[in-house]
Amino acid sequence: MEDNNIIVNYIEKPDLKNVTFIEGLPGIGNVGKLAAEHLIDEVGAKKFLEIYSKHFPPQVLVDEQGLVRLVGNEMYYLKRDEAKGDLVILVGDYQGLTPEGQYDVCKRIIDIVREYELKHIYTLGGYGTGKMIEKPRVLGAVTRLGLIKKMEKAGVVFSSGEPGSGIVGASGLILGFGKLYDIDGVCLMGETSGYFVDPKGAQVVLEVLAKLLEVKIDMSDLETKAKDVDKIASKLHEIEQNLETKSKDDLTYIG
Amino acid sequence: MEDNNIIVNYIEKPDLKNVTFIEGLPGIGNVGKLAAEHLIDEVGAKKFLEIYSKHFPPQVLVDEQGLVRLVGNEMYYLKRDEAKGDLVILVGDYQGLTPEGQYDVCKRIIDIVREYELKHIYTLGGYGTGKMIEKPRVLGAVTRLGLIKKMEKAGVVFSSGEPGSGIVGASGLILGFGKLYDIDGVCLMGETSGYFVDPKGAQVVLEVLAKLLEVKIDMSDLETKAKDVDKIASKLHEIEQNLETKSKDDLTYIG
Amino acid sequence: MEDNNIIVNYIEKPDLKNVTFIEGLPGIGNVGKLAAEHLIDEVGAKKFLEIYSKHFPPQVLVDEQGLVRLVGNEMYYLKRDEAKGDLVILVGDYQGLTPEGQYDVCKRIIDIVREYELKHIYTLGGYGTGKMIEKPRVLGAVTRLGLIKKMEKAGVVFSSGEPGSGIVGASGLILGFGKLYDIDGVCLMGETSGYFVDPKGAQVVLEVLAKLLEVKIDMSDLETKAKDVDKIASKLHEIEQNLETKSKDDLTYIG
Amino acid sequence: MEDNNIIVNYIEKPDLKNVTFIEGLPGIGNVGKLAAEHLIDEVGAKKFLEIYSKHFPPQVLVDEQGLVRLVGNEMYYLKRDEAKGDLVILVGDYQGLTPEGQYDVCKRIIDIVREYELKHIYTLGGYGTGKMIEKPRVLGAVTRLGLIKKMEKAGVVFSSGEPGSGIVGASGLILGFGKLYDIDGVCLMGETSGYFVDPKGAQVVLEVLAKLLEVKIDMSDLETKAKDVDKIASKLHEIEQNLETKSKDDLTYIG
Repeated sequence: MEDNNIIVNYIEKPDLKNVTFIEGLPGIGNVGKLAAEHLIDEVGAKKFLEIYSKHFPPQVLVDEQGLVRLVGNEMYYLKRDEAKGDLVILVGDYQGLTPEGQYDVCKRIIDIVREYELKHIYTLGGYGTGKMIEKPRVLGAVTRLGLIKKMEKAGVVFSSGEPGSGIVGASGLILGFGKLYDIDGVCLMGETSGYFVDPKGAQVVLEVLAKLLEVKIDMSDLETKAKDVDKIASKLHEIEQNLETKSKDDLTYIG
Repeated sequence: MEDNNIIVNYIEKPDLKNVTFIEGLPGIGNVGKLAAEHLIDEVGAKKFLEIYSKHFPPQVLVDEQGLVRLVGNEMYYLKRDEAKGDLVILVGDYQGLTPEGQYDVCKRIIDIVREYELKHIYTLGGYGTGKMIEKPRVLGAVTRLGLIKKMEKAGVVFSSGEPGSGIVGASGLILGFGKLYDIDGVCLMGETSGYFVDPKGAQVVLEVLAKLLEVKIDMSDLETKAKDVDKIASKLHEIEQNLETKSKDDLTYIG
Repeated sequence: MEDNNIIVNYIEKPDLKNVTFIEGLPGIGNVGKLAAEHLIDEVGAKKFLEIYSKHFPPQVLVDEQGLVRLVGNEMYYLKRDEAKGDLVILVGDYQGLTPEGQYDVCKRIIDIVREYELKHIYTLGGYGTGKMIEKPRVLGAVTRLGLIKKMEKAGVVFSSGEPGSGIVGASGLILGFGKLYDIDGVCLMGETSGYFVDPKGAQVVLEVLAKLLEVKIDMSDLETKAKDVDKIASKLHEIEQNLETKSKDDLTYIG
Repeated sequence: MEDNNIIVNYIEKPDLKNVTFIEGLPGIGNVGKLAAEHLIDEVGAKKFLEIYSKHFPPQVLVDEQGLVRLVGNEMYYLKRDEAKGDLVILVGDYQGLTPEGQYDVCKRIIDIVREYELKHIYTLGGYGTGKMIEKPRVLGAVTRLGLIKKMEKAGVVFSSGEPGSGIVGASGLILGFGKLYDIDGVCLMGETSGYFVDPKGAQVVLEVLAKLLEVKIDMSDLETKAKDVDKIASKLHEIEQNLETKSKDDLTYIG
């Protein structure tokens, strides 16, 4: 159940076949996390294990009622017919705090899912653009060039030089480890300003993923959340403009 | 006696039953540490082990006479009749310096007390409010919802959204590990400004804990210390006000 | 194939004899990395292993087509006649991020090459001078005083007090570990401003190394790169001077 | 010979009895290091082992001729008649870089010397006062109160509240570990401004230590070094005063 650095707590040991693994940990705009959590809710995936580690903050979270739980990562599964294959979905409160922690935790995660018949990996993340985006694209990166054609059909954009500096954190590492073990892997990155938690970025990622996984997902929740964030962004923009106008008025009085 | 990271030095191996474990390490306002040290003094608990670790500062303390000792943590015990159960109390100079250190040390601590018949955990801490508080409340968090009723009877307040960001450090981790092992645990957090070492916060926590542990504790020492801190706080406040008055006087000359 | 900290992925296990090991990881002016990569290209050395580690950034690089690969280090080999001896060349994306990581990775590297009949080590690096240099020297440091004469014949300069603060990072550590195992080692440091990636510094290092290894290396690629960098440096210098002239003109208007 | 963190390289395994261990690593004013190195030179102690570690900087030092060596710590020994007992003296380039590194290295050092019949430990250091001191005292701290009388006879001062914050680093840890193993230990701290490398502080420590160890030590080298440092300090003081006078003159012109 445990080593010194990482505790893996199995709630259940499901019998899974032809597994597709999906990673959605916190990151830029929380795009991956929002997408993976929405996927879990929509397909009714079931939690089967928890991961605790010295590489996460030394912290418990307290819920509304006063109940504590250690921060960690969690895996959910969904059984499907053998042709489509089963799903394992990773979500969590944090990524590892240090480079060494990232490595240790992601290495352990890939080792856990490799105990099953692991066929595909999708890591979900945001691609920070630094500006508000009306129609976010979904950028892709792959562990094998042969995967690109299928991804492009599903709407993924492969754009030379994007992402220029590579993919940092769990979405990169899990893909990289997967490649070491010859497992097909794709990183799906939803464009996002990076300033807000971004349900719109999560939605475009999930639309692509739904096609690839052959699942139906109702996006209304994410759309509502996206509208809420848009409203907040608009208000902030308004306040900013008012402040600018005001300061111009003030200048009139002075000048 | 030791591994590479943590040395556990047993002075005695007491035979303990139906154990309640109390953690009071340094933290916000040193509320937990003051409360646990006062409890040890009042009930006459006896030291039975010392913990040294690479996760504490690389330092010895020197006492008034010139005697050195390695910084560390210590456990004390108190035998009681079997109905009430025995007590193990943890105090110390420091918590682990890094997230990894916190995890390692707290994991080891829970493993040490689990060698006994561990029934309850109380972790003691301060809840920083950022302002002076006349009548500090004792906030609570639990590992099992069924514990709340008993806590509320003893005067603990469960307030939705407090603490909002969870519980960081030993008071959180030890509770979290306890929950993993299905041990009932409660964190008792005394409200404190967080600006001073706070004997008043320690007193309210200890009043609640005394009821829960069915022990009698004379609070006069803590009350004296609290008055001393109040005096210092008052003086600082006075000095501040004088400074303000003065600067207003100065302004009169200018205006 | 792996421990917890470092994964060594053998593509091939070549049979090597009388081995000379050459290290060229990123560093000051990327002198060592440029020199080692150019050497690999020119002699047609073949990759035989990859090193991945928690001590490198938790990151994959993405190429122009969208293909990912974990950041790491790589070893190449070249078989030669037994008199000249075989070559093993180390290049990579990063050095270890922390002092502990540097130590772990370099210790492992030396252990890998010591599995062969290791006779010589050359570590390649830049020696930062903080100013542009027309004719960079190649400074040397050795694990055994008897090596100096041969190095001086090849054009290496041994200058008392240079480098004053020692050699930090892989070029130093690998030499230091080599000395512990009584292996002849030399660090070749090309003078470089340290402001730019410096192909000219790489060229002078490689000219010395080519003599020592008895290989022929066409430097035209490095020369072209050096001219490109020179052009950029000249342009920056021009812009700077224009700015200075301008600001003097501006002062005329004010004065 | 090695584990993953620390390499211990024995040059010789001397047969030592009734051992007194003396630590003099770099620290405040380099007092301990200067004292221990001078002791080694004066008594003609012989190096018998080297310690290398990932906890030291990843670096080789290069000497005047161009010869490299890994940074590390070293132990020297001196055989004496059985009544006086043998000496083991520790010096080095660095202490461990991190708290964990300090702990690991000091733990290993104490384990190495405990393989011998270890009777006494003296750790040597500086006590920073923040001002220039004409006649530095030697402050002490002990692992056992019974040691104080002998120390006071040798001229050591035990002053309540000095050092107030304890002893940080190797001089503290080695004493602390010694105490855990019931070995008599004393820290000798020479007062020093802390602004300069301080041979005068080293001299007073060594004068006390010479009495305790019953060795004769010619201090003329340290005295010469101390005069050199004094001259530099005087010159700096002069320059400072000139600057002050000048700026007052300047003010005259303005005022």
